Amino acid sequence: MLQWLRQYRRGALPGDIGAGVVVAMMMIPQGMAYALVAGLPPVAGLYASILPPLLYAVFGSSMTQSVGPMAIVSLMTGAAIAPLAAAGSGLHAVLAAQLALVAGVVLLLCGLLRLGFLANFFSRPVMSGFTVGSSLVIAWGQLRPLLGGDPLHTHIPSAVLGGASLLLLILARGYLAAGLQRLGMKKSAADVAAKLAPMFVVLAALAAVATLGAHGIALTGPVPTGLPQLNLATSSAHWYALLKPGLLIGFVIFLISMSAAQTLAQKRGEKLVSNRELVGLGAANVASMVSGGFPVTGSLSRSAVNFAAGAQTPLASVISAVLLACALVLPTDWLALLPLPTLAATIIVAVLGMLELDTLKTAWRYDRGDALAWIVTCIGVLVLGVEAGVIVGVVLSMGTLIWRASRPHIAVLGRIAGTEHFRNVDRYTATTSDAVLILRIDANLFFGNVEAVAERIEDELRGHPGARHLVLTMTAVSSIDTSALFALTELNASLKARGIRLHLAEVKGPVMDRLRASSLLDTLNGKLFLSTAMASDYLNHPTPDKESQ
Amino acid sequence: MLQWLRQYRRGALPGDIGAGVVVAMMMIPQGMAYALVAGLPPVAGLYASILPPLLYAVFGSSMTQSVGPMAIVSLMTGAAIAPLAAAGSGLHAVLAAQLALVAGVVLLLCGLLRLGFLANFFSRPVMSGFTVGSSLVIAWGQLRPLLGGDPLHTHIPSAVLGGASLLLLILARGYLAAGLQRLGMKKSAADVAAKLAPMFVVLAALAAVATLGAHGIALTGPVPTGLPQLNLATSSAHWYALLKPGLLIGFVIFLISMSAAQTLAQKRGEKLVSNRELVGLGAANVASMVSGGFPVTGSLSRSAVNFAAGAQTPLASVISAVLLACALVLPTDWLALLPLPTLAATIIVAVLGMLELDTLKTAWRYDRGDALAWIVTCIGVLVLGVEAGVIVGVVLSMGTLIWRASRPHIAVLGRIAGTEHFRNVDRYTATTSDAVLILRIDANLFFGNVEAVAERIEDELRGHPGARHLVLTMTAVSSIDTSALFALTELNASLKARGIRLHLAEVKGPVMDRLRASSLLDTLNGKLFLSTAMASDYLNHPTPDKESQ
Repeated sequence: MLQWLRQYRRGALPGDIGAGVVVAMMMIPQGMAYALVAGLPPVAGLYASILPPLLYAVFGSSMTQSVGPMAIVSLMTGAAIAPLAAAGSGLHAVLAAQLALVAGVVLLLCGLLRLGFLANFFSRPVMSGFTVGSSLVIAWGQLRPLLGGDPLHTHIPSAVLGGASLLLLILARGYLAAGLQRLGMKKSAADVAAKLAPMFVVLAALAAVATLGAHGIALTGPVPTGLPQLNLATSSAHWYALLKPGLLIGFVIFLISMSAAQTLAQKRGEKLVSNRELVGLGAANVASMVSGGFPVTGSLSRSAVNFAAGAQTPLASVISAVLLACALVLPTDWLALLPLPTLAATIIVAVLGMLELDTLKTAWRYDRGDALAWIVTCIGVLVLGVEAGVIVGVVLSMGTLIWRASRPHIAVLGRIAGTEHFRNVDRYTATTSDAVLILRIDANLFFGNVEAVAERIEDELRGHPGARHLVLTMTAVSSIDTSALFALTELNASLKARGIRLHLAEVKGPVMDRLRASSLLDTLNGKLFLSTAMASDYLNHPTPDKESQ
Repeated sequence: MLQWLRQYRRGALPGDIGAGVVVAMMMIPQGMAYALVAGLPPVAGLYASILPPLLYAVFGSSMTQSVGPMAIVSLMTGAAIAPLAAAGSGLHAVLAAQLALVAGVVLLLCGLLRLGFLANFFSRPVMSGFTVGSSLVIAWGQLRPLLGGDPLHTHIPSAVLGGASLLLLILARGYLAAGLQRLGMKKSAADVAAKLAPMFVVLAALAAVATLGAHGIALTGPVPTGLPQLNLATSSAHWYALLKPGLLIGFVIFLISMSAAQTLAQKRGEKLVSNRELVGLGAANVASMVSGGFPVTGSLSRSAVNFAAGAQTPLASVISAVLLACALVLPTDWLALLPLPTLAATIIVAVLGMLELDTLKTAWRYDRGDALAWIVTCIGVLVLGVEAGVIVGVVLSMGTLIWRASRPHIAVLGRIAGTEHFRNVDRYTATTSDAVLILRIDANLFFGNVEAVAERIEDELRGHPGARHLVLTMTAVSSIDTSALFALTELNASLKARGIRLHLAEVKGPVMDRLRASSLLDTLNGKLFLSTAMASDYLNHPTPDKESQ
């Protein structure tokens, strides 16, 4: 904890200050926009950007993660609270903070219970399908504020401002970095500067409204000056209703943050500790509740800017939080004129960046099942909503896993003539014997594949009716769970009743250590062999002098 | 389909007839008792025992499975309908039939979509914990009918009859088979005859009530004579409410039936086809709805009797169904006098047989994590109910799986001096080189372990700062999913940026076939080697003439 501060090197300071300034400038429009996605007044987004990164800086393990509001988590927050309170109402804000507390406590508990492995419940294609589906839902939800009404009942001044903002942002996204480079800026600096386009577009829109008047365009309205007040208001009636969404949002917060942090940590060979990430994110969300915010997480887009702008340590996030706090202490009257169509445009452009189809394309070529999981998750989010989408994603990830496990690779082995080597008879010319059937199991044995393995063994025994000995070669088996232990015990009993002996060859050290704690080896109706060759020699040429082996 | 009938051997007939008679005699008290568990009039249990086994005989794949009412499925049925209708009401019966339809359609759809692998979602310890928890819930629920009231407000005649029935049944369970053997019966025949004890105890109780009077003991009441009427009544308001319980019950029906069928099929080396099991069970449940029954499944206790009594083919079940139909056509007035305390006693004794703790004991010695999953599932059923218990069970099964996957076994390899063999340096005295780090990955690579593998690799690289080459030995890797493909691609890019080359050795044929469909091999910042020894030789002694290798 705070190791980065104790070991702080002076040389890291310029990078951290620069990144802190850049991220603060990025955070102001982004925080306000994502608050709107969550159905909250824009200032809540600023409140959620001050305390949470400070807490994460104390407890988290990533050096460059930027914790704060994030599009998908805001979408889930809005969806969870929509049935309970009207968007923009005081109750809505209370419930959003309360949801951050529930998610934060869930994350803290998971961290204390060392459940960091939970991040592994989503496969990458499922995560990608979930992200793309959520992005589409978010973009669709911003059409109305962008146009000031339905597509059929557009408010012309809003649509003009929204459209212009959108156009500017898309152009900036496509060409600004290259343009700045052409003006002599370094590539890395140009890339970072281009990320500030939303800030400047928002300021320009604000200036336009201030000079030309609002013409009926929706504005953010008065933003209270000053730091967020300590907020412990909760709605006792809604704790139960927030439990399930809080669990799901906590899970998604962790997934999104881990995937962002891992991407950046790998670039510098830094170490992430998933259980500390859980605690850091949990503390950040509890802090968000206390300061009148809503659920927050680490965002890849913002953290990548932090990283690219030179952040070396979490000090960058601390600086950015302090700058945001300063901004709130200064007069905030001018923020009241911020036009919502422009904020909608910043959201749409931000989520366009999450619409990546590369994962789908790769999966389509590499593994059709994974591609299907991508598609079903994406459709699940679009049709059933983002909460159900999380559950669909977990079910599909686990489903593909169990489906693959249910088709374990098992090879019939034969001897390569004149050698001690045994190979798959389907791929090599190898000699087998009628009485001795040798199978190599190419998977760890666990409840998900153990019935399939048993069925496959029975199939092979039916195909080799003369077999009196079954040798299982265990080179690829690194673990055997309790379900598989039972299955092996039953296989042993069943083979014994049918007059077939069961032998094990090449059992790995750790597996053997485990099996010694069970009764399988005592009751084994056959022998243990150090190698497949020894098993084959012994069983095919039983001689009295070898019996002592 | 019906292959068993086309290939019917005359020699199988005596066994099938005997088993059919025995199972019918077992089914009458059992079916009526399990109907009570589901909150239905006892006759519904008989209705659920006629059409379902006939349909299963047509579509199922097990030769000895006996499909009909089963304690846990009845408990789930009662729990699902309790919030929607009063036990014993007409609506309750309609909803129970409707639930069978929902579960049946779910099973049929799963069968048509070939989702037989779904049976692998429960680990064996979790299934055992679920069964024990459910048994306790069922037994507890029968205390009231057994005693004719609360333990504090016992109805004396009911308690006397219930207690006597319970005592007789427990004695029969413990000593009847041995006693019959001592009287000269063969062991197998004695075992089967002992299973008919409930039938005789029920008949004795019935005779007692008929001669001595009811004395206020609750009786089943009038049972309509005749076969079940076609019943297509449904309650349109409740379809949605029955969807989730229908899904869960369908899953449990499949789990329970598969586990029973597998146990018996293994004894005779018979082949089960899980997708046909789904269709058979689905058709059986749809048939149960049509005949005014409730959700049914294959039961291990009854199927084991069927097996032991000599059933060779599903004809046994057909015979038993026909006998039950005949019983309903005869006058059924006498069934009205059947005392409920005695039926409660048969239920309690039946579920006592499911209270096995061997799985827990074995798991406790062999794998503490699996034992914990057993305990948590059992407590989940007791505290949260049987429906939530199914979900707890799936989550725990998947949780232990992902947890184990998150700790993959990876070995640093070194050369056994003077040989071509490379072994784990922690277990063998082996020589390593500073510049060439060789890691053997002992697991299939998939989304559940890929981050853990990447972290472990980074740890090893930190521990070997001089490494310029990383060789991954893939002997134990039989599959690489899309998530793992991305992770390897990113590892390759990250190592390249750090000046470390990534090599792969001993990649299996099927894995290599797969990788060729990706761009990993084209961008690989290193080489492919047929063996670890070749990789080590080449990388430690790079000579121009070997470059062509």
